[in-house]
Amino acid sequence: MAMSPENEHPVKAFGWAARDTTGHHLSPFKFSRRATGENDVTFKVLYCGICHSDLHSIKNEWGITSYPIVPGHEIVGVVTEIGTKVTKFKVGNKVGVGCMVGSCHSCANCKDDLENYCPKDDLVLCTAGLIRPELHLGIVGLGGLGHMVVKFAKAMGLKVTVISTSPNKKKEAMDHLGADAFLVSRNTEDMELAMGTIDGIIDTVSAVHALLPLFNLLKINGKLIMVGAPEKPLELLAFPLLMGRKMVGGSCIGGIKETQEMIDFAAKHNIVADIELIPMDYVNTAMERLSKANIKYRFVIDITNSLKPF
Amino acid sequence: MAMSPENEHPVKAFGWAARDTTGHHLSPFKFSRRATGENDVTFKVLYCGICHSDLHSIKNEWGITSYPIVPGHEIVGVVTEIGTKVTKFKVGNKVGVGCMVGSCHSCANCKDDLENYCPKDDLVLCTAGLIRPELHLGIVGLGGLGHMVVKFAKAMGLKVTVISTSPNKKKEAMDHLGADAFLVSRNTEDMELAMGTIDGIIDTVSAVHALLPLFNLLKINGKLIMVGAPEKPLELLAFPLLMGRKMVGGSCIGGIKETQEMIDFAAKHNIVADIELIPMDYVNTAMERLSKANIKYRFVIDITNSLKPF
Repeated sequence: MAMSPENEHPVKAFGWAARDTTGHHLSPFKFSRRATGENDVTFKVLYCGICHSDLHSIKNEWGITSYPIVPGHEIVGVVTEIGTKVTKFKVGNKVGVGCMVGSCHSCANCKDDLENYCPKDDLVLCTAGLIRPELHLGIVGLGGLGHMVVKFAKAMGLKVTVISTSPNKKKEAMDHLGADAFLVSRNTEDMELAMGTIDGIIDTVSAVHALLPLFNLLKINGKLIMVGAPEKPLELLAFPLLMGRKMVGGSCIGGIKETQEMIDFAAKHNIVADIELIPMDYVNTAMERLSKANIKYRFVIDITNSLKPF
Repeated sequence: MAMSPENEHPVKAFGWAARDTTGHHLSPFKFSRRATGENDVTFKVLYCGICHSDLHSIKNEWGITSYPIVPGHEIVGVVTEIGTKVTKFKVGNKVGVGCMVGSCHSCANCKDDLENYCPKDDLVLCTAGLIRPELHLGIVGLGGLGHMVVKFAKAMGLKVTVISTSPNKKKEAMDHLGADAFLVSRNTEDMELAMGTIDGIIDTVSAVHALLPLFNLLKINGKLIMVGAPEKPLELLAFPLLMGRKMVGGSCIGGIKETQEMIDFAAKHNIVADIELIPMDYVNTAMERLSKANIKYRFVIDITNSLKPF
């Protein structure tokens, strides 16, 4: 007989879980984990960010959720125990964990520092690509991802234009985040004036939206990279791509090497996310607010001070 | 008063034209051309290929046709007169003309040998990109463009897989054109077996079609380049692009330098198009057959021997 998540493993743990598609909300949940293996690092979670993909997951909007589910894949903590073969970490180290589990370390992608594309990976969503100095970069959407892309791009010396549906984000984008320009995507006159001026666009919007006005902003050979994941198909007209050798692509997370480089760059340039720190029992309100984009820019749960054993 | 196309210029010419949207067929037509200017090359047309974009043009399917129109942009002939400043051509030279007119020779794209993207260009459609040695290339559609891509790709040493809706094109693709493999796009079992095995795809299909099965064939970082131009939007799902850092782009014609390189390569490797040579007065039947894809692979009109003055 298969054991329940509560009893399968010897190490007892607790968190907040969604139980089924009907509830859509999180509540306290006891579960179990395996004992620390020879290659494992066990750590105590201090903080956990909330990503829009957590919302997709608890609502099973991608159709791949297995309930009960304890969401959360933006985790930092302190190492409490290491396996006998672990050399890179010690007890007391601060560690961060993303959304990649179980890469094989031996396939072509793993050897190429792209563990995120290992066929054995389990992965979810949230970093970008296409950031090179001396380009004019467009950033669509000013949420958890978008505001970080602006900060990274400016630290890399790029010219940055934020493209948003909300005119009232202009001041924030330019004065607080340092963007060079701001376009309201519904303002067709301004969008036409900016046609053919942007080298690359990072599109962070996860709702269905029109790509054509964005293609028009791109120069010849320009690229649009989607890092948001609308569930339904977008409309793709071939002509604008053909007439400008333009491309549209996608990217999700990076490999371990890329991720470490990103963290080192962030540390060097003092790039941090703008967050709202919340206690554990605020999580369902946070999810509700997140679904309405009512957050600047990332909820982070203060696990240490608010997740209580029960 | 504006002059008619028949009388605007001093040099008299004749061809076959579509007069309006109602007819959709071509008939003999007298028109006029300017005298040979100091930078002009005048030549006698010997042969003219028929491209699917000619069919789009005479039916005004792209909404940009100005009637009367004498279609045809795949032309070869013999130089009969040159302007006083012309240095690269002499009377008697064989010349070929594509679908690019009036590039400025001074903008950034022109200086970069991409006259095809000069903002002053008038251009129509039909070469590809994404052909590099040692790749596994997929080619979707086996028409006028597709069969040439197979020939070029094989001459470049690529592994080539043809992807088609028609199982009965397999023998032709492999035995005659030299493709290494053939996939019937409706055969889901074979398509699944080939998932993740192809580096790049050149998609020559100009009808609306599904992109998702093609994305699935691509390896990580794979690219799909559309060179056909469906009038209606295709469905673009973000997820398959994100999960494999895949891209979809477009390309139409090349610049003059690229085109010359292509012709030199074709001459060196004896790459020629498979054509059906037809007389001028067969053109309407040819257009009808082209619209039904009933041609292997390109109609070419024998202008010298069949276009009669009237």
